[in-house]
Amino acid sequence: MAKELTPRSENYSQWYLDLVVKAGLAESSAVRGCMVIKPYGYAIWEKMQRQLDDMFKETGHENAYFPLFIPKSFFSKEADHVEGFAKECAVVTHYRLKTNPEGNGVVVDPEAKLEEELIIRPTSETIIWNTYRNWIQSHRDLPILINQWANVVRWEMRTRLFLRTAEFLWQEGHTAHATKVEAIEETEKIINLYAEFAEKYMAVPVIKGLKSENERFAGAVETYSIEALMQDGKALQSGTSHFLGQNFAKAFDVRFANNEGKEEFVWATSWGVSTRLMGALIMAHSDDNGLILPPKLAPYQVVIVPIYKKEEQLAAISEKVKEIQAKLKSKGISVRYDDSDNKKPGWKFAEYELKGVPVRIAMGPRDLENGTVELARRDTLEKKVLPVEGIEVYVMNLLNEIQENIYNKAAKFRTENTTKVDSYDEFKEILNNKGGFILAHWDGTSETELKIKEETKATIRCIPLDDEKEEGRCIYSGKPSKQRVLFAVAY
Amino acid sequence: MAKELTPRSENYSQWYLDLVVKAGLAESSAVRGCMVIKPYGYAIWEKMQRQLDDMFKETGHENAYFPLFIPKSFFSKEADHVEGFAKECAVVTHYRLKTNPEGNGVVVDPEAKLEEELIIRPTSETIIWNTYRNWIQSHRDLPILINQWANVVRWEMRTRLFLRTAEFLWQEGHTAHATKVEAIEETEKIINLYAEFAEKYMAVPVIKGLKSENERFAGAVETYSIEALMQDGKALQSGTSHFLGQNFAKAFDVRFANNEGKEEFVWATSWGVSTRLMGALIMAHSDDNGLILPPKLAPYQVVIVPIYKKEEQLAAISEKVKEIQAKLKSKGISVRYDDSDNKKPGWKFAEYELKGVPVRIAMGPRDLENGTVELARRDTLEKKVLPVEGIEVYVMNLLNEIQENIYNKAAKFRTENTTKVDSYDEFKEILNNKGGFILAHWDGTSETELKIKEETKATIRCIPLDDEKEEGRCIYSGKPSKQRVLFAVAY
Repeated sequence: MAKELTPRSENYSQWYLDLVVKAGLAESSAVRGCMVIKPYGYAIWEKMQRQLDDMFKETGHENAYFPLFIPKSFFSKEADHVEGFAKECAVVTHYRLKTNPEGNGVVVDPEAKLEEELIIRPTSETIIWNTYRNWIQSHRDLPILINQWANVVRWEMRTRLFLRTAEFLWQEGHTAHATKVEAIEETEKIINLYAEFAEKYMAVPVIKGLKSENERFAGAVETYSIEALMQDGKALQSGTSHFLGQNFAKAFDVRFANNEGKEEFVWATSWGVSTRLMGALIMAHSDDNGLILPPKLAPYQVVIVPIYKKEEQLAAISEKVKEIQAKLKSKGISVRYDDSDNKKPGWKFAEYELKGVPVRIAMGPRDLENGTVELARRDTLEKKVLPVEGIEVYVMNLLNEIQENIYNKAAKFRTENTTKVDSYDEFKEILNNKGGFILAHWDGTSETELKIKEETKATIRCIPLDDEKEEGRCIYSGKPSKQRVLFAVAY
Repeated sequence: MAKELTPRSENYSQWYLDLVVKAGLAESSAVRGCMVIKPYGYAIWEKMQRQLDDMFKETGHENAYFPLFIPKSFFSKEADHVEGFAKECAVVTHYRLKTNPEGNGVVVDPEAKLEEELIIRPTSETIIWNTYRNWIQSHRDLPILINQWANVVRWEMRTRLFLRTAEFLWQEGHTAHATKVEAIEETEKIINLYAEFAEKYMAVPVIKGLKSENERFAGAVETYSIEALMQDGKALQSGTSHFLGQNFAKAFDVRFANNEGKEEFVWATSWGVSTRLMGALIMAHSDDNGLILPPKLAPYQVVIVPIYKKEEQLAAISEKVKEIQAKLKSKGISVRYDDSDNKKPGWKFAEYELKGVPVRIAMGPRDLENGTVELARRDTLEKKVLPVEGIEVYVMNLLNEIQENIYNKAAKFRTENTTKVDSYDEFKEILNNKGGFILAHWDGTSETELKIKEETKATIRCIPLDDEKEEGRCIYSGKPSKQRVLFAVAY
């Protein structure tokens, strides 16, 4: 088989790369660090987008679009933001090419130099808060609940398809509120929304929590994140929601008259998920045969493959398949019928396994006679012969079962790979031999966190929101701690 | 009223700008030539996107995503493309900022200069055909039918919201075919799809045709366009579909083995529509009171405004409105209920007129008693009192009627403003006194076309596809001509 993947046990990174490329999800482009998202990969991303967009709209958010370019000077306005962030950026300095006067091709026209350089947005807080200044005068103009779907650029040195690329696609929400309480509520509403999306649609269990100061978004007062565990025992930060306080309002002078007529600075949040979610989806579920997609995000949930020797057989099978397709569609199930004649059934089976199609139905001449089909589910690779009669109900239930099974499998894996430790030796031993999430006490200082990172590469993924509080002593310093925090080596 | 628009008769351009800004569609940003698309404008664009995307998918196209950046050298590969196109572009030369060593803010790090400059895509033929080279080996890999939704940048000197901006949003289709015939079929299929979208959804009648050589896309063998007529008598090119021949395949060396095993260059098309369509939509229908939106693209088709003095009246009206909303929604009609208490009904009426909501329903205490509502349609401004009973059927039919009426009005305007002329004097007289579309004979030479443009500012918008052929003599040179072509002054 041409499309064999490197086994996970042999080389997990290579397995991931093989899978992304061979399943037709994405590939590297001619531009360093930028990827091409191929149709099958983009179709999954579109499903994610549609679902998230619906959830944003249901919670009162509207979409808008702000410029790709940000004047350089905007970055210096919020001090923490520029310190923590805006250095590795694509910088536009000129606005014209001209024919090379000395020969071939085109050169940059030195006459066409911008007065002020423009930065390709790495995130849009600055340009958006500069705009909000003109939109907000009174408390009646608040809240503003806006999201944008956009491309952003961060000049990453070490890139990996979907997980870390120079250009990536994302959504960024930017909201403005009259009170601190309301802004914090919004920040929390969104981290809950992200968690719901990850768990119900991606079938990826996540831990919600607060970031430590070190890992906080540049310019944020608090950063909330959802953290997922990959099959290699590493963590993947899958979404963040930031309470920005009044930092950007102060930097861009955005004030409003409150209902007593007094001027105040506006309270802000921002939040985003990106094509990085594709990486989480792939790495959380897939196996050495290829992708395993949750039915709710699969571009097509069922593929039907005919098995035949003669043209008449194909015609008869296709006739019956039409009926099955109609039945499945009546239940809202998306189906693809692959009757292409240049590939053998065995090749097709492997291909759709690679592509993670949740359910495969095969139908041959004997099935036709018996009124049956052969059905295979991707998650367990189990096969069954079933009557065509009632197939739509069977598949509908099966898709729900697969969605649940994938989630449960990932949750079980996470449980098995989450370890409570009470000493630094134990911490290092677990990290080296088992990996995964580690719950341990921490004294709350950046100093300790950085030391642990330096010595073990593990970072504090978050301070979990939903865990019970429990007193203890920091595994590193022995100082008192009020709650275990979540450590892991992260992507 | 604060939001009054400059009347069209006084200053059409100012009316347009007033309308775009005051209806909350878009505004200029802090970045020269770039706009902010505001939520209401973006909601209309989303409706357009969704419909077009459905139409692309129904015709077998898939979405994908290619990089924002294009290496400078790619532009020189297709000679006509670089000649006709790629000069006014945003050029990325550096990839890092650093803290200003001499004081405040950030500066571009001179150490972080790119070896080869990157151009922000003004269109993506080059990067896409460079990618297709690796995707295509055999005729079995064809056709490739891909579309992408993306932002592009062309450094325009004179910009106007939606109509011409440095950054704009669009879709660009890029297809690859084994034969010339198939590629031409695709090009024509898409121009027909665009025309259908413009007429059925935007309610804007368009003329389909071929561009003259002068107006052809740089690198195309033939460019098809749809041309719409605005209320000021100017034409607006609203979509283009290009048959690219083998030009890009040759430039990027994209070959395939045909079914006899012989190598051939691949045939190409590309096609696009952009946020410019928003300009067409606005200018084709709207009046001095504001937008007039076709129901099929209105973010909400019906707005309901309560009229009351006392809180108890509002409560009773709201109760009844809930029922009406449910009835309307059951027919697939989108409704907004504006019960905000900080604006008077008169203000709301004007606001929703400005925003072009197709149907407004008002309900006061007397209506409540009588079981009636007052209904106003935006296109004609007619008002009627109607029973609540059966309102959903009435509104459903009315929305269809409005959609049709808007189209018919625009079509009537176009008919009245399309003139056949047979002499150059007549041509100039019509241009000066009436404007609009002019059908005239042309000798087919670029020389004549450019002379006419120089002397009158009118250009050949297209050589219509659907007009009857008719022999005649060129209005400028007197040479023989086989068909009238469409002239106009264009946006």
